[in-house]
Amino acid sequence: MKGYIQVYTGNGKGKTTAAIGLAMRALGAGKKVFFAQFVKGMAYSEVKAMQKFSPDIIVKQYGLSCFIYNAPTQADIDAARDGFNEVSKIILSGKYDVVVLDEVNIAIYYKLFEAEELIDLLKKKPKQTEIIITGRYACQALIDFADLVSEMKEIKHYYTKGIKARKGIEF
Amino acid sequence: MKGYIQVYTGNGKGKTTAAIGLAMRALGAGKKVFFAQFVKGMAYSEVKAMQKFSPDIIVKQYGLSCFIYNAPTQADIDAARDGFNEVSKIILSGKYDVVVLDEVNIAIYYKLFEAEELIDLLKKKPKQTEIIITGRYACQALIDFADLVSEMKEIKHYYTKGIKARKGIEF
Repeated sequence: MKGYIQVYTGNGKGKTTAAIGLAMRALGAGKKVFFAQFVKGMAYSEVKAMQKFSPDIIVKQYGLSCFIYNAPTQADIDAARDGFNEVSKIILSGKYDVVVLDEVNIAIYYKLFEAEELIDLLKKKPKQTEIIITGRYACQALIDFADLVSEMKEIKHYYTKGIKARKGIEF
Repeated sequence: MKGYIQVYTGNGKGKTTAAIGLAMRALGAGKKVFFAQFVKGMAYSEVKAMQKFSPDIIVKQYGLSCFIYNAPTQADIDAARDGFNEVSKIILSGKYDVVVLDEVNIAIYYKLFEAEELIDLLKKKPKQTEIIITGRYACQALIDFADLVSEMKEIKHYYTKGIKARKGIEF
């Protein structure tokens, strides 16, 4: 079965959760999944849940902190670079049916690495590997290259009413 | 913790998968989840995966078939009505922290039941219950009533290249 490149972007809620849902669906069908989270370094509830769920999913995080409100530090850049190198090997190994690159758009937006590097990697991916990319600010080159792009558009969000992120719902 | 009403709509990929991801995240945080699928009656990979995953999630399907390309039959209407009645009890019981009403927008769009009935139910929900509603064609009354609305917008989809739905990826 041929694998495609899916991108979930936009400012609305649902990008990472859609990637988790895709991972679950793939696991339910007996596939092997590698779930890489860039930028984020927190202990998310879903990471715990997925790791507990199945030996067929590996979850790895390549972010140190939530730098989104500040500039990335050298440590952030190094963590993303290490992640990119590791994920490259993972994809090229062909051992995983589905590889999720969560928040990779943010890593590119903050120039932790270049979009061209990612696209070069994707060009070399094994034919059967499905790639799921998430994060707001997807760059045009990646949108052009991808097979599927969904934009999660914020129509309405309770953040604007001052509601804070809640454990088990937002993280 | 107060629960809100989230709606995922639009013509793009990622609505049901986002709901599955939210369910996983909630389970990872120790919450109890009821996942109701309207309209769909197929044995989805993700349903299997979720049911296997945790005793804290109940998945129930209230659809007989994929009637989307035809008109709903009386059996489709009855199945949705039974589902609505059962889900009403589930929500009002307060036993679940998160209740997913997957594809309920489609059920309303095809008039299997009325939007007003759903909104009346949501007005009576226990304060702490989080409700996740998915499906394209969300009606304006529900959008107005919800606390959060994300529109999954199709920017690009490989269906348009003639690629068929794949097990473990689309279902």
